[in-house]
Amino acid sequence: MSLTHSQPAVAAATSESDAPSYRQPGGSPAAIAHGLAEQFAQTAAARDTQGGTPKAERDALRASGLLALSIPTQYGGLGANWVETLDTVREIATADSSLAHVYGFQHLLLASVRLFGEPSQWEPWFEQTARKQWFWGNTLNPLDKRTIATQNPGGWWEFSGKKSFTSGALDSQMLLASALDAQTGKLLIAAIPSERGGITLYHDWNNIGQRQTDSGSALFERVRVEQGELLLNPGPLSTPFSSLRPLLAQLIFAHVFLGVAQGAFAQARRYTVHESAPWFRSGVEAAGDDPYIQATYGEFWAALEAARLTTRHAAEVFDAAWQRGGALDEAGRGQVAVAVAAAKVITSRTGLDISSRLFEVTGARATHAALRFDRFWRNLRTQTLHDPLHYKLKELGDWVLNEHYPTPTFYS
Amino acid sequence: MSLTHSQPAVAAATSESDAPSYRQPGGSPAAIAHGLAEQFAQTAAARDTQGGTPKAERDALRASGLLALSIPTQYGGLGANWVETLDTVREIATADSSLAHVYGFQHLLLASVRLFGEPSQWEPWFEQTARKQWFWGNTLNPLDKRTIATQNPGGWWEFSGKKSFTSGALDSQMLLASALDAQTGKLLIAAIPSERGGITLYHDWNNIGQRQTDSGSALFERVRVEQGELLLNPGPLSTPFSSLRPLLAQLIFAHVFLGVAQGAFAQARRYTVHESAPWFRSGVEAAGDDPYIQATYGEFWAALEAARLTTRHAAEVFDAAWQRGGALDEAGRGQVAVAVAAAKVITSRTGLDISSRLFEVTGARATHAALRFDRFWRNLRTQTLHDPLHYKLKELGDWVLNEHYPTPTFYS
Amino acid sequence: MSLTHSQPAVAAATSESDAPSYRQPGGSPAAIAHGLAEQFAQTAAARDTQGGTPKAERDALRASGLLALSIPTQYGGLGANWVETLDTVREIATADSSLAHVYGFQHLLLASVRLFGEPSQWEPWFEQTARKQWFWGNTLNPLDKRTIATQNPGGWWEFSGKKSFTSGALDSQMLLASALDAQTGKLLIAAIPSERGGITLYHDWNNIGQRQTDSGSALFERVRVEQGELLLNPGPLSTPFSSLRPLLAQLIFAHVFLGVAQGAFAQARRYTVHESAPWFRSGVEAAGDDPYIQATYGEFWAALEAARLTTRHAAEVFDAAWQRGGALDEAGRGQVAVAVAAAKVITSRTGLDISSRLFEVTGARATHAALRFDRFWRNLRTQTLHDPLHYKLKELGDWVLNEHYPTPTFYS
Amino acid sequence: MSLTHSQPAVAAATSESDAPSYRQPGGSPAAIAHGLAEQFAQTAAARDTQGGTPKAERDALRASGLLALSIPTQYGGLGANWVETLDTVREIATADSSLAHVYGFQHLLLASVRLFGEPSQWEPWFEQTARKQWFWGNTLNPLDKRTIATQNPGGWWEFSGKKSFTSGALDSQMLLASALDAQTGKLLIAAIPSERGGITLYHDWNNIGQRQTDSGSALFERVRVEQGELLLNPGPLSTPFSSLRPLLAQLIFAHVFLGVAQGAFAQARRYTVHESAPWFRSGVEAAGDDPYIQATYGEFWAALEAARLTTRHAAEVFDAAWQRGGALDEAGRGQVAVAVAAAKVITSRTGLDISSRLFEVTGARATHAALRFDRFWRNLRTQTLHDPLHYKLKELGDWVLNEHYPTPTFYS
Repeated sequence: MSLTHSQPAVAAATSESDAPSYRQPGGSPAAIAHGLAEQFAQTAAARDTQGGTPKAERDALRASGLLALSIPTQYGGLGANWVETLDTVREIATADSSLAHVYGFQHLLLASVRLFGEPSQWEPWFEQTARKQWFWGNTLNPLDKRTIATQNPGGWWEFSGKKSFTSGALDSQMLLASALDAQTGKLLIAAIPSERGGITLYHDWNNIGQRQTDSGSALFERVRVEQGELLLNPGPLSTPFSSLRPLLAQLIFAHVFLGVAQGAFAQARRYTVHESAPWFRSGVEAAGDDPYIQATYGEFWAALEAARLTTRHAAEVFDAAWQRGGALDEAGRGQVAVAVAAAKVITSRTGLDISSRLFEVTGARATHAALRFDRFWRNLRTQTLHDPLHYKLKELGDWVLNEHYPTPTFYS
Repeated sequence: MSLTHSQPAVAAATSESDAPSYRQPGGSPAAIAHGLAEQFAQTAAARDTQGGTPKAERDALRASGLLALSIPTQYGGLGANWVETLDTVREIATADSSLAHVYGFQHLLLASVRLFGEPSQWEPWFEQTARKQWFWGNTLNPLDKRTIATQNPGGWWEFSGKKSFTSGALDSQMLLASALDAQTGKLLIAAIPSERGGITLYHDWNNIGQRQTDSGSALFERVRVEQGELLLNPGPLSTPFSSLRPLLAQLIFAHVFLGVAQGAFAQARRYTVHESAPWFRSGVEAAGDDPYIQATYGEFWAALEAARLTTRHAAEVFDAAWQRGGALDEAGRGQVAVAVAAAKVITSRTGLDISSRLFEVTGARATHAALRFDRFWRNLRTQTLHDPLHYKLKELGDWVLNEHYPTPTFYS
Repeated sequence: MSLTHSQPAVAAATSESDAPSYRQPGGSPAAIAHGLAEQFAQTAAARDTQGGTPKAERDALRASGLLALSIPTQYGGLGANWVETLDTVREIATADSSLAHVYGFQHLLLASVRLFGEPSQWEPWFEQTARKQWFWGNTLNPLDKRTIATQNPGGWWEFSGKKSFTSGALDSQMLLASALDAQTGKLLIAAIPSERGGITLYHDWNNIGQRQTDSGSALFERVRVEQGELLLNPGPLSTPFSSLRPLLAQLIFAHVFLGVAQGAFAQARRYTVHESAPWFRSGVEAAGDDPYIQATYGEFWAALEAARLTTRHAAEVFDAAWQRGGALDEAGRGQVAVAVAAAKVITSRTGLDISSRLFEVTGARATHAALRFDRFWRNLRTQTLHDPLHYKLKELGDWVLNEHYPTPTFYS
Repeated sequence: MSLTHSQPAVAAATSESDAPSYRQPGGSPAAIAHGLAEQFAQTAAARDTQGGTPKAERDALRASGLLALSIPTQYGGLGANWVETLDTVREIATADSSLAHVYGFQHLLLASVRLFGEPSQWEPWFEQTARKQWFWGNTLNPLDKRTIATQNPGGWWEFSGKKSFTSGALDSQMLLASALDAQTGKLLIAAIPSERGGITLYHDWNNIGQRQTDSGSALFERVRVEQGELLLNPGPLSTPFSSLRPLLAQLIFAHVFLGVAQGAFAQARRYTVHESAPWFRSGVEAAGDDPYIQATYGEFWAALEAARLTTRHAAEVFDAAWQRGGALDEAGRGQVAVAVAAAKVITSRTGLDISSRLFEVTGARATHAALRFDRFWRNLRTQTLHDPLHYKLKELGDWVLNEHYPTPTFYS
């Protein structure tokens, strides 16, 4: 019998000949992710305490081959679809949501250059990422308007200014960076090597959760950006297809939230079964026989199932839209937005509820700091604030009532 | 654009030659159910007021051919699987949950004779049901132990006593009836014609909801039951496969609850968009632009999606178990129980929440009695009490914590 | 032991000599209200079914003397303060929230003429109300702008047009009526005899709850209104003191909601203890020993206590502000608004929750129509829509964050 | 205008001549507590990080005179009643719930010797506590049965064994200690100097919340306890009056929970008003004008008011029972238990809700570790697990349904 939320078996996406040499024989992406999650779980509590960059774990992700999971096989990747890719994000989040976040963003950033740029741009990036196990980092924050781009008479650009919330930029090989064109105010997005001169990435992320995402600040000082590094054609959010990018970001969050909730549930269950004492007035021999504890776990389970299925459904809808490529129309993109929003709402609420109430079914001793069971709530509490849930609900309602699909922005 | 919760297209389950003559050419079961729902919706509020037996609508169900939907084609039925069958129950519940209940129980009772009896018993019943459009009614209530069975020296049995909650027994052709063996106390279940002598069905159902289910009381006075009408082999709940019966009952409820929630949502949406006035302090021109109303509809939608997907998943798990037939083992049956319980929990709560809060997004005038918008809550409130949700949650938790699958009973 | 939510004993507000002759010797207002509630409870379910005007019960209210409860003793009233007056509204609502509504509005309408008009106007109205046991009805609906006032060259006014939600207008002796001045658009409010020519009160209230409040529609056809019947000095919402009027309306609602919740709780408790069967899997002998049922009643009780104390506190704050009279400043009025809003929020939510969930602790048989246990939810569902709770919450938040007291309107 | 939850002014409980010399002239207990809270707030976040014993703050409590607040004036104390004493606990909890916990337990332990022992025992303890500013610590944990008491032939006793959850034992002058009589198994409770030989108090409290309560473990190694130090007459929980002790503990928790919730609310409000940016899709200029943020603060406020009033009511009921002393009967004690349970339920839930959702109205930047806004949730999450809320609800329900007052235990 298995108590895990069953996930349909994920078939290996590539044939033997396509697989990079570092892949374990027979190791499916799901199995690899599961192995990484087990490994990360050993140190997750300790690393939550210390914060900083999880260098060893990032290197394990590099070695696993999963950084190329979503890259098509013709560019040396594993060619997984989004359902499969996102399921590995979820799996890693059951153990460590910081790593799940930067790992999920790896695929988001790869998708970004694919959606915003030209094949002549992203094809070599894809190939090099697959071959050299590049990690991509994020210095794109459209709400932080402090970085300015000016065009040099020589043709290149210079990005100067600050950026906040630069998840995964430290220890990366490539960055997605944004700046506002000093002339036009237009958002420019570029892909550049992380080691490019003039970029300072600060080790200043110290928040209550998601403590190893390195989501601190960056400084750009006259960073040279070549014209060919700008993603101008079709450019960000320019078409329904390119506007899938923010939906992928939201979908990654939903998978991270689901994974955290599943991890919290599993850890709590183990503690209740093996560690918790029954309450002296309960009349039962084991905490696991307490009627209130049982009913609470029943609620957790039902909610997790609903969250799991809603998230899976959204990923399937996303995959179908992705397949349509440039043929995707506004309605098609809108259907994805609605499915993803529902998944984000359900996983946010379910995750926060379980990660707080788990203590009510594990008991006072489960607050011992060494367990760090509070990290599930802290991680979710932090990550769920990326953009306000109320506005996600408003978008859904506006669609229900007025048949307006959510307007594409970097948050919708 | 479609605002309906999208359901995968349900292919017609039968070829032209199998289809009964009264079926519309090209009418899939889903389309037929949709047509019936539209028809029933015209009078649902009025019939909720009057209660009693919905004779015309029951006859429409007969004429539709859907009473044979779950009967295999070799017996003249439409051969639908459970996903398809249950989706018609849900569809009818969007308009009228009383009819959905007795229509769902039609298929439950057919499944009961299939699961509890021998082929030589249920094959002719299936054939006659398909051919004569028999409606089956329920006088099986295992918690009501007032009906006693005694065996006559001539071999036949006599059932005597009272029964409560006999949904759909009025205006039926066949009844499933239960009694306790006076000698052994064992539960005996029989399938008998409704017109059998000694049976009195009372028109005494008058409850706050589900008002046209005729779930009143019955009196058995020395009702003769032949040995061949008793379902003894394998008998009720005797094997994992035969123990699917209560899970089908629970799954029907989940589909009814989901359908009511969807119907309430659709009616409320229509009212908000076309009838509600914006609050004078809202600063918007239309109720549908109010930020609180929008966010509330957003919550409704996300919850409905989660409920829809959880219910669909449970139906698929059920179908897979059904396909295994006698090979189904306890674990396989247990997995169904868990999936069905989750669906019941989610649909109960979502339905009750939406059917009560819909008034907060439609406004004071939506309480006008002619609309009878309260019937969604009254119907759900009544039907969700069939068995206590707390014990469904406890079962789930006992499984999560102790790996005990729910013990098969008529409620689990 | 008393299971009732203890209310501090309410001392009789008047000495023997002040008391009208029809009062029972020694009967405090609280005791009189309790007696009326017991009497009304006998027929509340039946009258909920039939709707219409509760003539006998309105006459019992007249005979009780409570229609003059809030009228100062110098005008022949019982001189109760608002805590005491509102507690009788709550008490009556435990049995019948329709009567509590119109009885509460009796005191609201008396307060309205006191707050909006001149002593020379309301003093005789108070005296006659006390002496003749007048019932006041409401045809003031500021959001329904269809009734227009035009001034006749002779000096008097004519009101013409329709009004909706005219609670308690039928079977009343006096009406508070409003119209918009055709010239200026200004809201005019008048107190006029209900039998004044040109007024038609329709028996058209037929809603899902509050079914005996006669909150239907009215037609004014050139109804003559004397200048001296207009409440112009200080006029509606003209000063902080006169702006207490809508807060009294809201406070009456809070007391009605609390009373309904307490009544629902008491009825449910009685049913669980005396009628409900324990669930067959519960392992207990009585429903009242079921751990889930006990914990649910525990939740109900705690919530009711919080609601009771919040409502009582608001009434005390209101009384203190009322005592300040014309000296009341905006901040003082604002403090009342905040306290009343909190009470309305808490009682609305607690009431709706208990009146829906009570079925989960009474069981399926408690849905029998003869009990009409659904009326608690229907009554609350209807009355809580008077004005949207979301905007009450917004007002509170605007005050918390921005130190803006709620702007006085007829709903704030 | 004041945004604080108004508390009735607490009059100074003592005349000038009674007041100890270290008290500020004119400083009421409430004012002193407010000053301490302001002082503690400066370092609360930093001390939450470091954990350990808050020596400077404990000394500030000593210097304040508040350690003798509940001691009657005839023994040199400030003679405050429980409403006043508990309000200072709440006030300190708005800034620092660890200090509020050990400070509240100071008064609990003083009450314990008063309730369980003889005047000849507690009178000198009271006097010395008031004169020497003794801090009392807790090594009484009835559920931890590892410490055993054996009587020496010389008449004295020896306590040997371990104890967990010994809040406030470090840096204390007196301890309440418990052990099981090796002969009879009976619980023995003694008051002994903390420096008594054989007692080891470990600095091993390291939990996710309440991090400066020193609730770690202790070891007793043949600790000599004189007969006169045992609290045998009337002994623990021996009478309704002595059984008030656990209710005082629960009431202290309720005040701590309320204080944390109020503190979280105040900090969040300040951040929203002064730091939060409006969401770019909100259409408003300031976060404080966002309709969802306003409504959420409205919910917080209403819930806090309900919690405040319920807690205050319980304290008043407790005070009244305390005044009855030995005349208190079971019903009188039971009424206190019910009122206290309601307060604990409401404050637990309100506190947890606000301390988690506050992030939804402050935004992503409010997760910065330097703010440590998560400590409100961590502190509440830890302290609310002292005993399971489900069993508190069950007790309430058992009383509601079966008229059984909660059986006195150390948790009820």
